[in-house]
Amino acid sequence: MKQSFFAIALAAFSTTLAHTQSPERPDKSAEPGIPASSNVGAAAYPRIAPDSRVTFRLRAPNARDVKLEGGAGLVKTPLDLKPGEDGTWTVTTPPTVGGFHYYWFNVDGVRVNDPASYAWFGYGRETSGIEIPEAGSGFYEARLEVPHGTVRAQWYYSKITGQWRKANVYTPPGYDENRRTRYPVLYLQHGAGENERGWIEQGRAGFILDNLIAAKKARPMIVVVDTGYASYAGTIVGTNRSAATAAFDDVMLQEVIPMIDRTFRTRSGREHRAMAGLSMGSGQALNLTLRHLDKFAWIGAMSGPPRQGFDVATAYDGVFRDAQAFNRKVKLLWLGAGTAEERFHASTVTIHETLEKAGIKNVMFSSAGTDHEWQTWRRSLHDFAPRLFQE
Amino acid sequence: MKQSFFAIALAAFSTTLAHTQSPERPDKSAEPGIPASSNVGAAAYPRIAPDSRVTFRLRAPNARDVKLEGGAGLVKTPLDLKPGEDGTWTVTTPPTVGGFHYYWFNVDGVRVNDPASYAWFGYGRETSGIEIPEAGSGFYEARLEVPHGTVRAQWYYSKITGQWRKANVYTPPGYDENRRTRYPVLYLQHGAGENERGWIEQGRAGFILDNLIAAKKARPMIVVVDTGYASYAGTIVGTNRSAATAAFDDVMLQEVIPMIDRTFRTRSGREHRAMAGLSMGSGQALNLTLRHLDKFAWIGAMSGPPRQGFDVATAYDGVFRDAQAFNRKVKLLWLGAGTAEERFHASTVTIHETLEKAGIKNVMFSSAGTDHEWQTWRRSLHDFAPRLFQE
Repeated sequence: MKQSFFAIALAAFSTTLAHTQSPERPDKSAEPGIPASSNVGAAAYPRIAPDSRVTFRLRAPNARDVKLEGGAGLVKTPLDLKPGEDGTWTVTTPPTVGGFHYYWFNVDGVRVNDPASYAWFGYGRETSGIEIPEAGSGFYEARLEVPHGTVRAQWYYSKITGQWRKANVYTPPGYDENRRTRYPVLYLQHGAGENERGWIEQGRAGFILDNLIAAKKARPMIVVVDTGYASYAGTIVGTNRSAATAAFDDVMLQEVIPMIDRTFRTRSGREHRAMAGLSMGSGQALNLTLRHLDKFAWIGAMSGPPRQGFDVATAYDGVFRDAQAFNRKVKLLWLGAGTAEERFHASTVTIHETLEKAGIKNVMFSSAGTDHEWQTWRRSLHDFAPRLFQE
Repeated sequence: MKQSFFAIALAAFSTTLAHTQSPERPDKSAEPGIPASSNVGAAAYPRIAPDSRVTFRLRAPNARDVKLEGGAGLVKTPLDLKPGEDGTWTVTTPPTVGGFHYYWFNVDGVRVNDPASYAWFGYGRETSGIEIPEAGSGFYEARLEVPHGTVRAQWYYSKITGQWRKANVYTPPGYDENRRTRYPVLYLQHGAGENERGWIEQGRAGFILDNLIAAKKARPMIVVVDTGYASYAGTIVGTNRSAATAAFDDVMLQEVIPMIDRTFRTRSGREHRAMAGLSMGSGQALNLTLRHLDKFAWIGAMSGPPRQGFDVATAYDGVFRDAQAFNRKVKLLWLGAGTAEERFHASTVTIHETLEKAGIKNVMFSSAGTDHEWQTWRRSLHDFAPRLFQE
């Protein structure tokens, strides 16, 4: 009765392949197009047509209702899959927006990942994702002619949270060889429901920096990607969202930054330290940096959650009250959002204009046609990073 | 109608938390025990009782049949979950074996990952996993008093496969500081349906090495973990298993090893190079090393697939025919398996004894009570690594 793991694993793997691509028994119903680069192994679906429509398939012979749900650039509202005779459900989306989109199937009310796609951490759980090519957007692709940095998993014990935590640290090309060079550091924060994998895996921060550095558009820098969730040791977090991030500032200032400065060849002054974040991380970056300008001189806020009643006089303990002093101190205050995430974009524009009116120098970046998704943030990093550490 | 990603993400994250732990509304039905360390965030289930039974929960209000399936040390045969009034299904396993186990829910015939657990790559897909503590097995835990190496994501373009590939490379503590030290290299291969994440994430190779090196039981070494799947550029792999791994030897010998020797401070002679693998990777390691003894002097075969008719005279092009020559050349031939993976263990013992009878020096390791799962391979690495690069 007992089947070995080995036999099961091989059978499962073959089954995955068989359901997705089968040269021996060519799939007559195969849509035109190409398998997504985010597919597992040789999986032929999800499959992207030349017009950017995507066909998804899921085998679920006993299901009564199967829907496709996910990021706004992929599906605006849930799409119904249609069952075929062999128990495989299928749907083709309308034309999609380029970039990375989270997605999942809803099978009779249960969220199910696609066995044919890799998973990324989003929405507080492991979630399927698809990469849709976008013409002219090689800026986040690995390129042959470009030297590549590496991303290191840097484990550290955090006394504040009482946990082992992992930071992903990008070191630029040449870091190992140029033993006397010290580098400025960018701290990059993810959004709600994501973690330290986001900027590396979904965001492709490493490839973006590799390409910018090779083109001499950005200065070689270290990028630190940690998780924005940090609760004080002994706290019961439960559904208490603020407890889940309450220790973030302390962990960053007292543990992460000193650990990075100790472990890597950093330039450690405020003029060599930047922080940016997206969505929830945007709020965290602003809260932390604007209250600790002795530590940071470069600040980025990507797709900040819409806020009302932004008051220059009182915001962030009044840091904007003396515009001249602020402008002398802060080398860059960068704001950005995608035009398709309308409320985020409108709110960001309002803050940008309010700050300008108050004489606070800041940069506003709009990502055309992208929503509250990673393509907005890849483009944001691509615009933000070249402005850093330039005197 | 359109909900922002941000709102959805926050809601989803809160929902995950609410279903798993809720201090404001304490869960009266909570089993005794502790949440697994492999749980997402503050999830209270899966929950491990003091007697090592595990309780799993899944919300699936419309499901008709929900089963728990997974690794043999967790569930020998599928277990039925029972529905509760709130649409949450529950099951408690019999006592489990310590270590890492893959698992998933089968909901009306569809394989569903647990939203409360992280995913690991196994069975050719992203799969939930659970870590069960085992008394006295701190050897694979991160320890405070121990210096830690780092794992680097090393991307390289493979002309042979026509793809960008990623190797995970462990460098030992002190690698960055000891600029004149060169290190021997262990190449470690995963099993069928797994990839380059296996030895790092499921296997915890980094922590195992950190602990062994700190205790001066193993020599500081670099460990390279790549994927064993490699098909020649232009090949349509489909369900053809041998095509999926056909290019492995060439990629290793012509691309990976030269890249590693170029990029890291390695000792590059055969006496400083080891290869081991588990299950499918065991076969790959033996095939490659025994046919290229000019490149490798240390060999490990963990849980090799059962084989019949092993013939010392003809196996691996007759490499065992001259025992004296073999023993002079090969510093270590290590074989191992878990006693609970009975066919694998029996086959490994047979090969061990056959080789001994033929005068071929080799080491046999048995992992007591563990099956064809990662606890066997963690223990295997813990036994194997200290024997490496010792003269």
